[in-house]
Amino acid sequence: MTITLSIDCMGGDHGSAITIPAAISFLAHEPEAALILVGLEAELRAELKRLKAYSHPRITVQHAAEVVAMDDPLEVALRRKKDSSMRVAVEMVKDGKAQACVSAGNTAALMAISRYVLKTMQGVDRPAICGIMPNQKNGPTYMLDLGANVDCEPHHLHQFAVMGSVLFSAMERTARPTIGLLNVGTEDIKGNEVVKATGKLLQEDHARGKLNFYGNVEGNDIFKGTTDVIVCDGFVGNVTLKAAEGLGRFMKDVMNTEFRRNPLTMIGALIAGGALKQIRNRFNPSRYNGASLLGLRGLVFKSHGSADAYSFEWALKRAFDAAKYNVQEQLSAMIAELIPCTPDRSAVIEPAVPGSTI
Amino acid sequence: MTITLSIDCMGGDHGSAITIPAAISFLAHEPEAALILVGLEAELRAELKRLKAYSHPRITVQHAAEVVAMDDPLEVALRRKKDSSMRVAVEMVKDGKAQACVSAGNTAALMAISRYVLKTMQGVDRPAICGIMPNQKNGPTYMLDLGANVDCEPHHLHQFAVMGSVLFSAMERTARPTIGLLNVGTEDIKGNEVVKATGKLLQEDHARGKLNFYGNVEGNDIFKGTTDVIVCDGFVGNVTLKAAEGLGRFMKDVMNTEFRRNPLTMIGALIAGGALKQIRNRFNPSRYNGASLLGLRGLVFKSHGSADAYSFEWALKRAFDAAKYNVQEQLSAMIAELIPCTPDRSAVIEPAVPGSTI
Repeated sequence: MTITLSIDCMGGDHGSAITIPAAISFLAHEPEAALILVGLEAELRAELKRLKAYSHPRITVQHAAEVVAMDDPLEVALRRKKDSSMRVAVEMVKDGKAQACVSAGNTAALMAISRYVLKTMQGVDRPAICGIMPNQKNGPTYMLDLGANVDCEPHHLHQFAVMGSVLFSAMERTARPTIGLLNVGTEDIKGNEVVKATGKLLQEDHARGKLNFYGNVEGNDIFKGTTDVIVCDGFVGNVTLKAAEGLGRFMKDVMNTEFRRNPLTMIGALIAGGALKQIRNRFNPSRYNGASLLGLRGLVFKSHGSADAYSFEWALKRAFDAAKYNVQEQLSAMIAELIPCTPDRSAVIEPAVPGSTI
Repeated sequence: MTITLSIDCMGGDHGSAITIPAAISFLAHEPEAALILVGLEAELRAELKRLKAYSHPRITVQHAAEVVAMDDPLEVALRRKKDSSMRVAVEMVKDGKAQACVSAGNTAALMAISRYVLKTMQGVDRPAICGIMPNQKNGPTYMLDLGANVDCEPHHLHQFAVMGSVLFSAMERTARPTIGLLNVGTEDIKGNEVVKATGKLLQEDHARGKLNFYGNVEGNDIFKGTTDVIVCDGFVGNVTLKAAEGLGRFMKDVMNTEFRRNPLTMIGALIAGGALKQIRNRFNPSRYNGASLLGLRGLVFKSHGSADAYSFEWALKRAFDAAKYNVQEQLSAMIAELIPCTPDRSAVIEPAVPGSTI
């Protein structure tokens, strides 16, 4: 069965120069995939021609006249550029022409457009961004929210836990993944008021055999791999993600500088090249590229804006897997089971430009 | 002029086996320092004897019959163990016998005891924990709060900014250090409600030429060294600190494993030994040991619980410098100038066991 992805080919720091080579390579590895490339048609066709893939049987080009810039205000992305490659790519999912959409564009714009075009799922108040961190067990730690919701109530964090659990379970083929609640200590009495109340909601689900709630986890547990999924509000998640990226870059720079400092260290680095390659590989952010925008009525994946083609291909692979493993259907089922549809919550009025302030 | 420090010699994972060797080494390097070693007298004297420092002219031993365990509940540490080494060491500061106190014990207990014994400074609602992170500019980034206050209002974060600025300025001999407000983006409109309101308070101080407010910073700016001081609430600070520690440990483990994998990588590591040593040195947490409990009527420093003697000595050095550079007096002056003593705030009733939930 063919799975079709729509790609916002103009998004990210490098646009079609990255997204199209990634798309062609992805199709070579994934015989069951088809792609709709969205963007400025002339540019996309020229790039396809250059790469000798002008008439690829599994590629369709969909013209979109506008491009959401990385620094466009939400207002511009959402209301002025109605024919942007980002929006048209998301509309492909809404119209059933694609099973998932991938963009490396402005995260806040992608979330706002996705919410506007696709709408949120029944039972979900706020979609969240779920990303992946590497851990010492050589597995992935799924973490959400990474920045879509900076002010959260306990029922929002509860919904993130449900969605993260479903995503991990489907993508990693794991029954009952463990859920950790990010906190400043492991005891139940620790944390701010929102987190303490969230802990109670998750304990109730655990007691009923619904969610596999491990309990509170701390910042270091992200990289220890203590739990499969870690839940936090978008402020904490975003700051932690960026701090980890920053520390990673710092360490990489120091390593590069020190190993190139003199002929001796350079020779040592050459001889120990296998070790250095393995170290780079373990922390290669490309392997973890492709965050899910969860809680929408359709699958949307966000690639890092600075992704190269190799890294963007990982995001395509993740979107493909999410469609293949029926993440959307599993989300609906689990949300219907675990998230009560209370009248006070369904009455919440969304702000004109939704909560996303990433 | 001699500066006297009181040391809770029983605190931390290793107690006197670490604190006393560190104390003796510190005195050898710092001729103007004197130390009051607080703890179980027989144990301390035995350790001093073993290290041939039984009659050191600048060491006094102060007996305290109890020890706060690393996992003692606040209640026990604060109310039951009134003759603990931690409490007696803090009392030395209150009684003017020491200019600063250092402990590697339970952070929450140290904060609670310090608040109870010393009281908070006039104008400060909540003391904060200020720690140091390494950055790419090879300088320190001061960050607070690291976990004393998990629910903060804008005026609390404002006070942290004032205190962090004074500490950096005094300790690093820098006029007008730059202050960053930790956020999910750099634009003023980003962030949750508390952070946005804090930004306004800091901008007002900046406009009046009082604080050198840089603006919003993101998680990666901690390690870039974008600003000298970074302000955040204790929840975000604690999670970020622990995540950074966790990632650092992960990277260290992977490096150790990979360089020891086979004879070739081991030879490479030997040859490039200078580079590896420099890398370890840049990220050595010992160099950054010694967090300040700011906003109390006396100087209290917290060493990491797992500190070795070398690392604990750094914490002693930081406490010594804080006393030498009159941090306490500078704090009082700056707080009197910048923090309005409004009646509604001074009327806040502190909870029985203060806000600290680290």
